[in-house]
Amino acid sequence: MSTPVAIICGGGGFPLAVAEAARRAGREVFLVGLHGAADPDIAVYPHMWLKLGEFGKLFRSLAERSVKELSIVGSLTRPDFSDLRLDFGGVRRLPDIARILRGGDDHALRGVVRFFEDEGYTVVGAHDLAPSLLLGEGPITMREPDAAAREDIALGFALGDALSAFDTGQSVVVANRRVVAVEAAEGTDAMVERVAQLRATGKLRLKGRCGVLVKAPKRGQDLRVDLPAIGPRTVAAAAAAQLDGIALAAHGVLVLQRDDIAAEADRLGLFVAGVTRPAAGA
Amino acid sequence: MSTPVAIICGGGGFPLAVAEAARRAGREVFLVGLHGAADPDIAVYPHMWLKLGEFGKLFRSLAERSVKELSIVGSLTRPDFSDLRLDFGGVRRLPDIARILRGGDDHALRGVVRFFEDEGYTVVGAHDLAPSLLLGEGPITMREPDAAAREDIALGFALGDALSAFDTGQSVVVANRRVVAVEAAEGTDAMVERVAQLRATGKLRLKGRCGVLVKAPKRGQDLRVDLPAIGPRTVAAAAAAQLDGIALAAHGVLVLQRDDIAAEADRLGLFVAGVTRPAAGA
Repeated sequence: MSTPVAIICGGGGFPLAVAEAARRAGREVFLVGLHGAADPDIAVYPHMWLKLGEFGKLFRSLAERSVKELSIVGSLTRPDFSDLRLDFGGVRRLPDIARILRGGDDHALRGVVRFFEDEGYTVVGAHDLAPSLLLGEGPITMREPDAAAREDIALGFALGDALSAFDTGQSVVVANRRVVAVEAAEGTDAMVERVAQLRATGKLRLKGRCGVLVKAPKRGQDLRVDLPAIGPRTVAAAAAAQLDGIALAAHGVLVLQRDDIAAEADRLGLFVAGVTRPAAGA
Repeated sequence: MSTPVAIICGGGGFPLAVAEAARRAGREVFLVGLHGAADPDIAVYPHMWLKLGEFGKLFRSLAERSVKELSIVGSLTRPDFSDLRLDFGGVRRLPDIARILRGGDDHALRGVVRFFEDEGYTVVGAHDLAPSLLLGEGPITMREPDAAAREDIALGFALGDALSAFDTGQSVVVANRRVVAVEAAEGTDAMVERVAQLRATGKLRLKGRCGVLVKAPKRGQDLRVDLPAIGPRTVAAAAAAQLDGIALAAHGVLVLQRDDIAAEADRLGLFVAGVTRPAAGA
């Protein structure tokens, strides 16, 4: 293909990782950096900067480059109306934007996908552009989950299933078959950091290295939006919380800097593994 | 009745509140303070102090007073084997104690109830001794939940139902029909304080006073153990998080210092209300 795919870049390291993997796979990329969120290093690729709400400018730029396909990658603090810098193209689309800004995360993100589709774009997932970033089945570390960890992982997956309908977080921490933390608005890393604090202050009493961070996409989730991901900070947080390891739903979670993560987890004695979830309702 | 009921006292203000309410209702009480947890003020009642594990001493003291009934009230950090100071009566019961210390909170607490029942005691709930502390239906504040708050409350109850099987926390915060925090090992007040932090740091963007703390016992929970409760700190935390109010499952949650809570919530502009949950599975 000769026309580029646009990558709309939020915060964190994923947009650049996805751009790099897409290029390695032979795709041309055009990066659209969201002002105040995206890494300035996106400038090493063909790119533009955009304030939230400048939809006129965005669609003109994409049309100039014959872009028909786009992907939305990276973190974005849930915006507020006051964050919007609407250009004429934005004002014209205000009713759609208002609709998107209401409801849960998942609802909002599905709205963004629909918004771009209604404009005639094909929205692809980061895992489509960069399948090498998706973790498969099995450990990437020297250690792998033992029998006790597998029980915690099964409980974590079951809890995730029960929460799927509620459009909340994508991860939990289970230790000794007990749910000790559930993610919602704080995000995965902050949740794991809470477990470290609870252990340090004695509010949560666990012996030695124990417990698993379990992360999986919600059931029925559109993986083109909000594909779950972990990065190096997740491993550092899990080690600080003295967890035994990290279990990720196989083929459902992006892993950034996989080699670094595996090396760091090995150094800290953690496992990081893709684990196949039981079928829904099983 | 002339024989006293024993109240095994963990931390916080509930043991004394329950003792006072039980006395007002005409019951004699005998307080058993857990060393390092219970309020020293339990000394105004007939009482004894106990280290965790001194079961021989406990059962002798209860027998001397012809106590046949007991209640377990107040918070207790999940103990560890190393916290136990086993006397001979404790050592004799070690297999039971070991069984209790494994598994989730609910599992452990059910184990404690069974342990005392096996010793021939009747275990009663704090709500049996002090029914006046249970919140009924309706607001105790000037404000009551509006239509938006009622939607958040319904979502919170539904999420609580979905989590009931998992023996985790008993409360959630829902704002604008979005689940923003789920309680597990951190406890209710710490969870609400997290919402305040997420709002202060901009990680959670909500306009003005909004969101509801929803608290309810797990479905099928034995209310003799771990009856959900709120106290003045909960109201302070909810106000700091700029929540709209606190909704408690009617007839399922203890409210400590109800008059103070109502006055403080009124001053801060919050509602505090008992709300009837839909029947399970409805």
